[in-house]
Amino acid sequence: MTLPTRYGVELPGWVLEEVAAAPRPATDVERMALVHRLARRNVREGTGGPFAALVVDASSGTLVSVGVNLVLASGLSASHAEVVALGLAQARLARWDLGAEGARHTLMVNWRPCVQCYGAILWAGITRLVIAGDGPELEALTGFDEGPMVPDWVAQFEARGIVVERGLLRAEALDVFREYQELVAAGAVTVYNARGTGPIKRG
Amino acid sequence: MTLPTRYGVELPGWVLEEVAAAPRPATDVERMALVHRLARRNVREGTGGPFAALVVDASSGTLVSVGVNLVLASGLSASHAEVVALGLAQARLARWDLGAEGARHTLMVNWRPCVQCYGAILWAGITRLVIAGDGPELEALTGFDEGPMVPDWVAQFEARGIVVERGLLRAEALDVFREYQELVAAGAVTVYNARGTGPIKRG
Repeated sequence: MTLPTRYGVELPGWVLEEVAAAPRPATDVERMALVHRLARRNVREGTGGPFAALVVDASSGTLVSVGVNLVLASGLSASHAEVVALGLAQARLARWDLGAEGARHTLMVNWRPCVQCYGAILWAGITRLVIAGDGPELEALTGFDEGPMVPDWVAQFEARGIVVERGLLRAEALDVFREYQELVAAGAVTVYNARGTGPIKRG
Repeated sequence: MTLPTRYGVELPGWVLEEVAAAPRPATDVERMALVHRLARRNVREGTGGPFAALVVDASSGTLVSVGVNLVLASGLSASHAEVVALGLAQARLARWDLGAEGARHTLMVNWRPCVQCYGAILWAGITRLVIAGDGPELEALTGFDEGPMVPDWVAQFEARGIVVERGLLRAEALDVFREYQELVAAGAVTVYNARGTGPIKRG
């Protein structure tokens, strides 16, 4: 049998519709509100877990890319929202280093990254990470196993020139996770769980 | 400007040529020898860092996918060898869970995963990880920043049903890193380093 030679990720059509449904966000609060709208709709559309991310040009504030968790839609377990947003930004700019040549980019996400996305952020060249929140509420509300984490994750980011800001529209992030929990309880969404009997996987 | 909607990874043509250059590996030693051949050739071809990975069907021993580090070739910082091999396997099998329905898969890599790939392995559903080695030699020889790591990474894998085996053809792994070091010293390869003045990034 021939070995596979390619894989890829494509945003579902509804994502750009959702972005176009309101004026382009001009402030961090508006940007995080867009993240939450995308995360909520991602669950309703059945394309992945309740997570979304944006890459923003730090100088101009321009939106470079938007990502949502596409584990279900893409069939790729790595396609968490952060990985998708970073991959799309790198594809658009045709470079693996989003900090190359003095460019500076911000990543905005609706919760603290899992350990995979923590590493993906480390290597992508972004210089600022804004998250709506962190803490045990995500796992408590959704049942996701977020996995182990680097204990001093913020300090390790900052040692590599990545500023971390937390707590922007945190309550709204929890609203999205609560809605996800209700849909799971109602049997209305697929929970992805890599070994069936194992811990529930991160969205 | 229109937001980007897709990104993807494609194996360079030389990868399947290299796989075809010898009989399909039938033992773990032969499989790890293939990993080392691919890692070495990846540097020579200029497609990425000195890393390669295989996904193997644990029951039949069949090779499901092969990956190499494609940061340079793909322009995507996340496309480390493990992520590429797992993504190709998931694309081939059309499922994000490589442990679904009783299937069991092994990932073989030439060194301990970085923190990003640690997480990617956690979420992919594989049940066994075989690495040629771990320890400080990689960073010492190549200058890569492997980043911080989960302190109890092996125990965390094993708590999630992922068996870890270390030390298969370890000396040969170091030979590949030494050759990489020599090529870097000779100015013959591109070292990827996400912020220019920052720490050198992982291959």
